[in-house]
Amino acid sequence: MKTYLAADIGGTNVKCGLVADSGEMLERSRFSFHSEKGPKALIDDLVSHFKQLAEKSNRAPAGAVIAAAGVIAPAKGLLITSPNLPGWNNVPVVELVEESLEIDTKLENDANLYALGEWLAGAGRGMNNMIGITLGTGVGGGIILNGRLWNGVFATAGEIGHTTVEPQGIRCNCGSIGCLETISSATGVTRMARERLSRGYKSSYTGKPEDITAEILYNMALKNDLLALEVFARAGWALGIAIANVFNLLGLEGAVIGAGMSPAFDMMYPSIMEQIRLRAFSFFPEDIVIKKAELGNDAALIGAPALFKPL
Amino acid sequence: MKTYLAADIGGTNVKCGLVADSGEMLERSRFSFHSEKGPKALIDDLVSHFKQLAEKSNRAPAGAVIAAAGVIAPAKGLLITSPNLPGWNNVPVVELVEESLEIDTKLENDANLYALGEWLAGAGRGMNNMIGITLGTGVGGGIILNGRLWNGVFATAGEIGHTTVEPQGIRCNCGSIGCLETISSATGVTRMARERLSRGYKSSYTGKPEDITAEILYNMALKNDLLALEVFARAGWALGIAIANVFNLLGLEGAVIGAGMSPAFDMMYPSIMEQIRLRAFSFFPEDIVIKKAELGNDAALIGAPALFKPL
Repeated sequence: MKTYLAADIGGTNVKCGLVADSGEMLERSRFSFHSEKGPKALIDDLVSHFKQLAEKSNRAPAGAVIAAAGVIAPAKGLLITSPNLPGWNNVPVVELVEESLEIDTKLENDANLYALGEWLAGAGRGMNNMIGITLGTGVGGGIILNGRLWNGVFATAGEIGHTTVEPQGIRCNCGSIGCLETISSATGVTRMARERLSRGYKSSYTGKPEDITAEILYNMALKNDLLALEVFARAGWALGIAIANVFNLLGLEGAVIGAGMSPAFDMMYPSIMEQIRLRAFSFFPEDIVIKKAELGNDAALIGAPALFKPL
Repeated sequence: MKTYLAADIGGTNVKCGLVADSGEMLERSRFSFHSEKGPKALIDDLVSHFKQLAEKSNRAPAGAVIAAAGVIAPAKGLLITSPNLPGWNNVPVVELVEESLEIDTKLENDANLYALGEWLAGAGRGMNNMIGITLGTGVGGGIILNGRLWNGVFATAGEIGHTTVEPQGIRCNCGSIGCLETISSATGVTRMARERLSRGYKSSYTGKPEDITAEILYNMALKNDLLALEVFARAGWALGIAIANVFNLLGLEGAVIGAGMSPAFDMMYPSIMEQIRLRAFSFFPEDIVIKKAELGNDAALIGAPALFKPL
């Protein structure tokens, strides 16, 4: 059994793990960081956690993987920019790690690693061609073709969150208009709920519109609040359109939907499928599978071995 | 130099060619057919044309490729259904050809072969990752990843024409709503022009709305007719949205736009680029190339050698 070191850099914490090539999580640890202290402080802690995890492996780990949100240049091991690491630009993460740790290290976008994790050991098991979609504050994604991550020419592939669903919709953080992310993210459902509340839409919610959150909406939907149900149906509608586009372009086997919004999967599923049945061009629509992610917050760590899959 | 036999089955004619592995067209021939006479009549003529072309090759052709519109199962050599061949269903085209001709034969969708042709010897030369888009009565496409045609799991990949641009738009022939094809095809621009004329939109066109064609619109646009210019700008707008979606998903180098509507490329180009600049998620937007196809009606034939590229 080969093992791999993996780290996932979040907003305030780094989760670390020792992962078997099967995707089994053997050991884990975590530490907090302050991005303003700069890359060196974080990398030092990361290397020391990796060393401790490596000691628990019965043989030397075959590789290390670091997951981060944002724009990554995997071939150069560069973190170009990350929303979680303000002020960090063009940080040579792989070089910094390899200076202190003699192990083949890779840096990859966290949504891509999430997709690889679900593919290796989660809801995507058995699919050779799939998209993994993360629904959190934003919407991310990773595309797997023939059992490998598809990075594209600029290493920006998989950005389903920034495909257009409503050409005349609202402005997205990315600068475009009507992206999937403006509708089907936690930010999107919260915005839609606030708009409806401000217009006087009837709801069981009695607080201020600006205080509503995706989690509150989820709990409202569990109690059949119509506003909440409508907002999740709308998120599913946009997801279904975007996924159907991906299927028509790429002919995939399925999609795995995860991250923070995934508890609301069942609330979105009927409208996702309605749009896929309407729009997906396939002679085998019953073969298109839309699944809820299975690995929770561990998915990106579990994707590490898949990044080292030999050609 | 290897040579390949190629045939492109159109609505009433089959174009045949002998193509060098460089993409050079060495010899050509053509014949007409009547689809109601059934597959055998067409295949017999095709085989006899292939034999005549093969005799002109200095050594035995290395393979044969047949292009057809519609749904193809390339791995089985089956033509499942084609708009040009009404009543033909699940025809084993490859088997029928190989019964009469001892040569490795492949069947492929014509838009996919168009993309391969432009990639091998046309506007896509030098791109390893691109989409070829055909704008004709409908909108088709073929995706090339790492220098190879991407067919997808159901061999239906590349269908950019059936990605959604306007979720609440008009009904498409495919059953979906607001597909790119409803706007940016010859049928789409004609429909949009007729609607505008019926609403009393001012134009230099003096005929009946129902008699207008994409070709008339093209000639009107050359003379700066505002209705025609607006309709092509709208076609470009939808194309730009759909292409930006593809770029964000796949990180391609470029797109090559061809087929019947390609003379209007320059009229659509500014609005294509406006949408790509607005919507494409890339740190290198200046590297995204949108080109007009170069090979005209020969592109699908010229794609034949690319289908035989060794792994």
